[in-house]
Amino acid sequence: MSSTKGPEFLKIQYQTMQTTFYEILLRYGFSQEKARTCASIFADNSLDGVYTHGVNRFPRFVKYVTEGHVHPESEAVCVSAVGCIEQWDGRLGPGPLNAIQCTDRAMEIASAQGMGCVAIANTNHWMRGGTYGWKAARKGFVFIGWTNTTANMPTWGALNSKLGNNPLVIAVPYQDEAIVLDMAMSQYSYGMLEFYQLKNQQLPVHGGFTTEGELTTDPSAIIKSQRILPVGYWKGAGLSLLLDILATILSGGLSVSGISKQKAEIGASQVFIAIALSKLKNFATISSAISQIITDYHDSTPEKGSTILYPGEKVMKVRKENASDGIPVLNSVWEEIKGL
Amino acid sequence: MSSTKGPEFLKIQYQTMQTTFYEILLRYGFSQEKARTCASIFADNSLDGVYTHGVNRFPRFVKYVTEGHVHPESEAVCVSAVGCIEQWDGRLGPGPLNAIQCTDRAMEIASAQGMGCVAIANTNHWMRGGTYGWKAARKGFVFIGWTNTTANMPTWGALNSKLGNNPLVIAVPYQDEAIVLDMAMSQYSYGMLEFYQLKNQQLPVHGGFTTEGELTTDPSAIIKSQRILPVGYWKGAGLSLLLDILATILSGGLSVSGISKQKAEIGASQVFIAIALSKLKNFATISSAISQIITDYHDSTPEKGSTILYPGEKVMKVRKENASDGIPVLNSVWEEIKGL
Repeated sequence: MSSTKGPEFLKIQYQTMQTTFYEILLRYGFSQEKARTCASIFADNSLDGVYTHGVNRFPRFVKYVTEGHVHPESEAVCVSAVGCIEQWDGRLGPGPLNAIQCTDRAMEIASAQGMGCVAIANTNHWMRGGTYGWKAARKGFVFIGWTNTTANMPTWGALNSKLGNNPLVIAVPYQDEAIVLDMAMSQYSYGMLEFYQLKNQQLPVHGGFTTEGELTTDPSAIIKSQRILPVGYWKGAGLSLLLDILATILSGGLSVSGISKQKAEIGASQVFIAIALSKLKNFATISSAISQIITDYHDSTPEKGSTILYPGEKVMKVRKENASDGIPVLNSVWEEIKGL
Repeated sequence: MSSTKGPEFLKIQYQTMQTTFYEILLRYGFSQEKARTCASIFADNSLDGVYTHGVNRFPRFVKYVTEGHVHPESEAVCVSAVGCIEQWDGRLGPGPLNAIQCTDRAMEIASAQGMGCVAIANTNHWMRGGTYGWKAARKGFVFIGWTNTTANMPTWGALNSKLGNNPLVIAVPYQDEAIVLDMAMSQYSYGMLEFYQLKNQQLPVHGGFTTEGELTTDPSAIIKSQRILPVGYWKGAGLSLLLDILATILSGGLSVSGISKQKAEIGASQVFIAIALSKLKNFATISSAISQIITDYHDSTPEKGSTILYPGEKVMKVRKENASDGIPVLNSVWEEIKGL
């Protein structure tokens, strides 16, 4: 989580941010309903502290609309349905809107059949994958979803990028909220490398290679070599490859290689799986089963200076702070947004 | 992959190994059919070079039977079916037999409904997860499966083990064979650490911590501290936790914490998901879509001394060698097996 304190930061209240986004999107061809949903997703991501896929990303999202990469009027359509699987065509509509629709549809199928899977082709960047995990899990569903991306990571033993960082999201309900893992397949994003570079700090753990092929914690050396590290070295490289294959074949859409040939990062393939816990025989005991696991997990002996958190636990703390104090936004970013 | 050359190794032909296992299992209460299936799984794993969960593991598997942890006569039963999800009780039967049955059943459900999920409680160690991925993928299904384990890995920032290494398997058909990712959530197994220790070698990448809390490539230091590293540090720790929660709540079985309280590593919870590719609208083009991804992947520029392989590619090479030359087995292990 990057620092968000200092004189270069404003504090914007959630409602102001959401309304600002909404009004801008109306001017760029979004219907009222679509503008409202999309504005809420960008504002929610910011509220949760995921600024890279919230307020900081909003100008680029609008740019993609003006450049014709994202079509605000497009409606995703179902092209095939068999049993509990549906295949959809996103028709290059706004990624977050397509993703919310697929999440909702996967939950509908799951409500009828226990589990539902929606795979979508020709969609766009879903921004923060956690958005869809939080939504489904809060409604009582298990969520498993992933997207492919443009090629941005070399496989293990390779010099050039053929893999995407293909974020994977797994979420479960927990105490009226959720446990949400939102995990890209690279150890660090380029955004995070730049953040450490700006602070003139080393990374806490290896993040990639130098141009000489040595593992390093130096963010500048990795930005120079463009060799970021897959999580778990060869293991995350393999997982990234399989997630791309699955997204591609289940949706019938573009692979990482196919996306990388587009004029921008457009045409992603995504998978949304929901499981209705209420349909399970053991439904009545699931909540306490999860609580027992988390209690045991929290009972780990921390090393000095560490706090043991489950995925999503810190998000809830940031959400509460930002709801009360306002969302920290760089002056320069807010000025840019107001000028859109 | 560990070295399997030297005077301490025999070469055992596949058929001899399978027959040897079969005859032993008959003596330990397995029916002919169960002995045949189980013997084939252990022999296949050995043929594929996964000796740790093949021939080397066989004596311990038999020990678990004699100690009453694994019940050879137990039949898994379906306790709940809703839509495309089934929940099974493994009744502490042999893990590989329960897992094969769940894989077959997930494929049956998928053949009818596009996708099928079988979650099983009260089962036992499935040995090599890849077994089930290879089987389903060779029959034209996508396979996603995982198991929980006893606690054997600390979460990020913790000193003691509260997480399992919870292997995850993802497989897809490829050219009459398969691409199979079989990935534990620890960077190295303790078996692999011992292998490097015996050779007096450092690990290629960080594998855990010293007792002083420093990341290290020294296998002896990690064995001493018992702090093995999750893949991708905090990321694999989160993935391990979520896989445990899902296995536990979908099956209604024991969590990592629950298994760790048993008298041995028994009563695992597992999930088997199959997707019937033949049901998809784009079925006719799936094979070429996967080939295009693999061609692009193989087209990576390797660093000096590296070969770019997809998950499972090396397995097929070892399988061919072992089928022709015999399976390498330590003299001492084969003597122990003959004495069972």
